Amino acid sequence: MSAETSAVAARPRSSLNTATVKHASLAEAVAAASRAGFAAVGLWRDQVQETGPRTAARIVAEAGLRVSSLCRGGFLTADDDAGITAALDDNKRAVEEAAAVGTSELVMVLGGLPGSTPGGPPAPGADRGLVAARVRAADRLADLVPFAAAHGVRLALEPLHPLFAADRAVLSTLGQALDLAAPFPPSVVGVVIDTYHVWWDPELAAQVARAGAEERISSYQVCDWALPLAPDALLSRRHVGDGYVDFAAVTRWVAAAGYRGDVETEIFNEDVWRADVDATAATVLERYERHVEPHLGP
Amino acid sequence: MSAETSAVAARPRSSLNTATVKHASLAEAVAAASRAGFAAVGLWRDQVQETGPRTAARIVAEAGLRVSSLCRGGFLTADDDAGITAALDDNKRAVEEAAAVGTSELVMVLGGLPGSTPGGPPAPGADRGLVAARVRAADRLADLVPFAAAHGVRLALEPLHPLFAADRAVLSTLGQALDLAAPFPPSVVGVVIDTYHVWWDPELAAQVARAGAEERISSYQVCDWALPLAPDALLSRRHVGDGYVDFAAVTRWVAAAGYRGDVETEIFNEDVWRADVDATAATVLERYERHVEPHLGP
Repeated sequence: MSAETSAVAARPRSSLNTATVKHASLAEAVAAASRAGFAAVGLWRDQVQETGPRTAARIVAEAGLRVSSLCRGGFLTADDDAGITAALDDNKRAVEEAAAVGTSELVMVLGGLPGSTPGGPPAPGADRGLVAARVRAADRLADLVPFAAAHGVRLALEPLHPLFAADRAVLSTLGQALDLAAPFPPSVVGVVIDTYHVWWDPELAAQVARAGAEERISSYQVCDWALPLAPDALLSRRHVGDGYVDFAAVTRWVAAAGYRGDVETEIFNEDVWRADVDATAATVLERYERHVEPHLGP
Repeated sequence: MSAETSAVAARPRSSLNTATVKHASLAEAVAAASRAGFAAVGLWRDQVQETGPRTAARIVAEAGLRVSSLCRGGFLTADDDAGITAALDDNKRAVEEAAAVGTSELVMVLGGLPGSTPGGPPAPGADRGLVAARVRAADRLADLVPFAAAHGVRLALEPLHPLFAADRAVLSTLGQALDLAAPFPPSVVGVVIDTYHVWWDPELAAQVARAGAEERISSYQVCDWALPLAPDALLSRRHVGDGYVDFAAVTRWVAAAGYRGDVETEIFNEDVWRADVDATAATVLERYERHVEPHLGP
């Protein structure tokens, strides 16, 4: 068998978040990830719920891959009893799904201000109490910790770019995430380091080191920041190398912090979603090999 | 003279940044600010250069107003000798213009990554060295401090929303601005607190208090954050009250920090710019009276 025709060697820490190939089914996404040479996939709850978590786990395992994380729980900022109960119930289901699909890492996006509209202006009479919303999210996290611990699942707090502070995530920096995690064991509350969301942070090097020292790095996610933003700002993420992020620097900080887990590429972008799934998987892996892997250390 | 026909009583700390009425001349903007009842105006260098700074100062004084700040110096991230020399020369002119127009506060926007394009993707071969760009900006600030001190002008460092970290300002948080200011006397290097840029910051209350304790608050600027962003993200600023910012909370922090200076409203927004100048000035003042002034303290 010549080198040209041999099976692609899996890159041992590479993971394709399936949101990057949004229009593929779970089976299609897993097959494409496997063909391209990924070692793992990051899954989303809607996909996992479609097949059921045990079927999803089997599809991934039969392709020889691992599940690096499940996206996502969170949305913990409700200020009314019904909203709080619904959020806790939904997050408990998310914890169970993470355990069933075979990952310890449940990515948590904390949610925006009550009365915000995703990508839009405040609803009439909307709350502007950002400080109070952050306190409520912390309280809900405390409510969920025992359940997560009992299921062996880590709540992986993901700070989102301050661009999304009003409507999607009152958690805006890695330092804030680590402060929020501090009261709980690192086996139960971790943090996600997503280059798109944190690349700009003047405290990033220090907080990545802290995250490592505190053993809280649940996931390292990569994609690039560029301008202009998409009309829906959420869909502005780019392939690694197409924007302004210094992947060599950030990746070295993550490696120096002792992170040895998977590196997920997660891109929400209409152009990427329109592309052929195998072509996207190949591009993602090539960019990973070029811009990230050389700086990951041993 | 009845109350109805008396001259509008000036709100003593209110300032209209003339970028809010971008299409008005300096004289038109000053006249509108005076008619509406502002106490001060924030000026821009292009306008001041058109009339000359002494004429600009006279126009403002004859209207019974003050100049609260001059926008703007900065753009200090160049990595080549010619770019560095040009930036230092331009900033020295800006310092002279601030002194001549009668304000002690020169607003500084530090600039983006070399090779960035405003609102666009990186140029081919563009620099991604954010950490190094921040170090260069600090070095240029040190170069400028003696000149500013000699002219009695304070370099007012303005952190911009992380949305602009790549293309406009590598200075992204108030804490970073205070760290950058720390080596220099507070009479020569200050900071701008602009709600649009810093409202999301989990460290905001603490850093505002620090800015006050260190006597570095050069300016408090207000406008609102809402979504969706404008196609040119720079033009997404809204009238106070139309977005997600908690003006009561932030204004109380600024007041508690001891700030007793002017409060500038600065809005870049095509819709606002298309509106009648007097109508805009009246709206700005009404929003200031409703959402900001009650929380400013004595």
